[in-house]
Amino acid sequence: MADKKKRRRADPSSDDEEDYGGGGRKPLPFKKRLKADSVILSELKDLTDSFRSSSTSEKTLTLSDLDLSSTCREVCDLDLSSVQDTIERLILRVAQSILSGNGFAFDVPARGNANQLYVPELDRIVLKDKTSLRPYSNASTVRKTTITARILQLVHQLCIKSIHVTKRDLFYTDVKLFQDQTQSDAVLDDVACMLGCTRSSLNVIAAEKGVVVGRLIFSDNGDMIDCTKMGMGGKAIPPNIDRVGDMQSDALFILLVEKDAAYIRLAEDRFYNRFPCIIVTAKGQPDVATRLFLRKMKMELKLPVLALVDSDPYGLKILSVYGCGSKNMSYDSANLTTPDIKWLGIRPSDLDKYKIPEQCRLPMTEQDIKTGKDLLEEDFVKKNPGWVEELTLMVKTKQKAEIQALSSFGFQYLSEVYLPLKLQQKDWL
Amino acid sequence: MADKKKRRRADPSSDDEEDYGGGGRKPLPFKKRLKADSVILSELKDLTDSFRSSSTSEKTLTLSDLDLSSTCREVCDLDLSSVQDTIERLILRVAQSILSGNGFAFDVPARGNANQLYVPELDRIVLKDKTSLRPYSNASTVRKTTITARILQLVHQLCIKSIHVTKRDLFYTDVKLFQDQTQSDAVLDDVACMLGCTRSSLNVIAAEKGVVVGRLIFSDNGDMIDCTKMGMGGKAIPPNIDRVGDMQSDALFILLVEKDAAYIRLAEDRFYNRFPCIIVTAKGQPDVATRLFLRKMKMELKLPVLALVDSDPYGLKILSVYGCGSKNMSYDSANLTTPDIKWLGIRPSDLDKYKIPEQCRLPMTEQDIKTGKDLLEEDFVKKNPGWVEELTLMVKTKQKAEIQALSSFGFQYLSEVYLPLKLQQKDWL
Repeated sequence: MADKKKRRRADPSSDDEEDYGGGGRKPLPFKKRLKADSVILSELKDLTDSFRSSSTSEKTLTLSDLDLSSTCREVCDLDLSSVQDTIERLILRVAQSILSGNGFAFDVPARGNANQLYVPELDRIVLKDKTSLRPYSNASTVRKTTITARILQLVHQLCIKSIHVTKRDLFYTDVKLFQDQTQSDAVLDDVACMLGCTRSSLNVIAAEKGVVVGRLIFSDNGDMIDCTKMGMGGKAIPPNIDRVGDMQSDALFILLVEKDAAYIRLAEDRFYNRFPCIIVTAKGQPDVATRLFLRKMKMELKLPVLALVDSDPYGLKILSVYGCGSKNMSYDSANLTTPDIKWLGIRPSDLDKYKIPEQCRLPMTEQDIKTGKDLLEEDFVKKNPGWVEELTLMVKTKQKAEIQALSSFGFQYLSEVYLPLKLQQKDWL
Repeated sequence: MADKKKRRRADPSSDDEEDYGGGGRKPLPFKKRLKADSVILSELKDLTDSFRSSSTSEKTLTLSDLDLSSTCREVCDLDLSSVQDTIERLILRVAQSILSGNGFAFDVPARGNANQLYVPELDRIVLKDKTSLRPYSNASTVRKTTITARILQLVHQLCIKSIHVTKRDLFYTDVKLFQDQTQSDAVLDDVACMLGCTRSSLNVIAAEKGVVVGRLIFSDNGDMIDCTKMGMGGKAIPPNIDRVGDMQSDALFILLVEKDAAYIRLAEDRFYNRFPCIIVTAKGQPDVATRLFLRKMKMELKLPVLALVDSDPYGLKILSVYGCGSKNMSYDSANLTTPDIKWLGIRPSDLDKYKIPEQCRLPMTEQDIKTGKDLLEEDFVKKNPGWVEELTLMVKTKQKAEIQALSSFGFQYLSEVYLPLKLQQKDWL
């Protein structure tokens, strides 16, 4: 990465310009360190350019580059008619099997923990190639086989009608058979895996909760959306990524924000006009729609992604879901994950560096500390020495802090000092 | 209301055209009852026109019309400079009191249950005029008095800077004093009450989660938003109602939807193009931003509001929060509530009328039944005999159903049959 050489991890409190006042009336701490916006911008522009050229020359690694394509399984986006075709061919094979006296069964990829693999070169979790037979003529699998056939039929209908439904809709089409929604949900993921396509290719979507604002134009179901003209509320991220396209942007980076409150601050201040960027948030735990949208932006626009999360184990966990996926959806990690997300802040070392007042820091609970220690054992943390250092500091100091803690220096400290200084110092990991 | 006379509460299953099939392949139940869209539309148009003329001639009742303005308290929207003025005058009075030897105290409106009143003529909860003194020179109130002064100072800053912040931001500006967020939140409502203005006038906003789509154009922070061109995702409802304006619409009604999944179905099917309407949802429990937005639409566009909620006590409770407010915010009920919301569905009587299969109905829990019985004692239910009838039926049958239960007749049953038939039959209460 081109930014590695240029990075100066300057401590903002290490020189003589100390102006920390602690109150809203006194000058904002570290504000004097800020260079002119034009200086910060021109450096950022160089960075984005070098990022772009490196990401066009570097081919994204795939399972086959690593000789893993025969032992690992991955799905891809399929259009509706291909999904329909694949279902029809699958059912034809089943019918042939019945006619030739071999009975009715599906060969379903195993999705349990034992079949999961973290691949460091890809920096994400993938599914290994183990499958298990789901025969109709077996008391222990007859229900699941029936559910599988029913889900295949329902998805086939969706393909013909070309409409999207939620998992909840799917469940209610046959409550008698599915009994509870966890059963239809689980088989839905099985079916995506069996067909070798993403869950969104099946036209079954999750309710969206993410919003986006800033220097982005895209089409949503045929309507052109200009995200600089979405006021303070922003544009709701569409639940169906297959109807999103034509992305255009003059942004220099994507700012991924964990929480609502910080998003609102940046949207109202139109931060994206001072530092051209796209601001996106899932308002907490990342949903599938926001993850797909983030990846699509990063891939099509070739922009660096900087993440602003709380300084606690949960914030890092959210970062990891965007970055290398969740275990439940590992079969689709290639489409759901956004590689190379940078941890901008709030980082544990920021607490002292930016002199966050003691009363705005929170003591970590026993559970927090345990989660933090568990994260230190995760591959996606271990491969980044900077992250290990930060997380170790967090667990050692037993302190956490929310993004909102910066409000103790004034409501606009986040948008007027903290983020500009972070960008100026290229202070991300 | 003009629609009362025209209403025919025809039972869709009462004549011979029975075509209920129970499966996706057979004709959709009751679909044959549907008249041509043009017929339904022309009747709806008459209805909206008569609604408009009645709502322009009928003045909205206020506390003073009922001779309650001296015994009840209400707040109004104030612009930023008026809020600033009011704070300055309040602090001046406090200073005078100190200088004249009477000490430092705030006179704070009581907001407890004992000071709440449901006014049937207004159909909402209001606050009575009791206040309590909050003196600085008293060990039991000294902290709260200090917090009140601090919140006044922070809001004063917001007025000068003309920015919006969340309650969480406010809390973090002085964690040492506030200790936990419930304390700063409660005093914030006290302050709004003291100043006689709405909480949104203080520029302290709640995170938004609502979305809107359909025949509506409005301005959000200066940007013109056309909600027919928001794809499937829709437009996120802005958190700051004071920057929303210029509403224009050719809709015939507003469709208020409780849940995401139904919203997505209607947005994808562009239901608002078949039956011109504005579709809005808060995705569950109504937040302040969505409530303010709904009221603003109803008042400025003079459109009837039809509500589509789950058939359970919780759905009716959500309807009541939109309609007559929550106790916590009763001081601002005039701005937060939308009068005369019609209960379109899913109503307890719909379960049999539309032959919702037994397995798609859910048994009510003990808690559900208790909530249902409690609701039967609430004034806002009792004043509407139709609602009492429906709720009594729900408690008697001990059955509830989600909007999604309609998916058992096919994914698009909601948008293609159920809602059009409801509109055709003017089947709302």
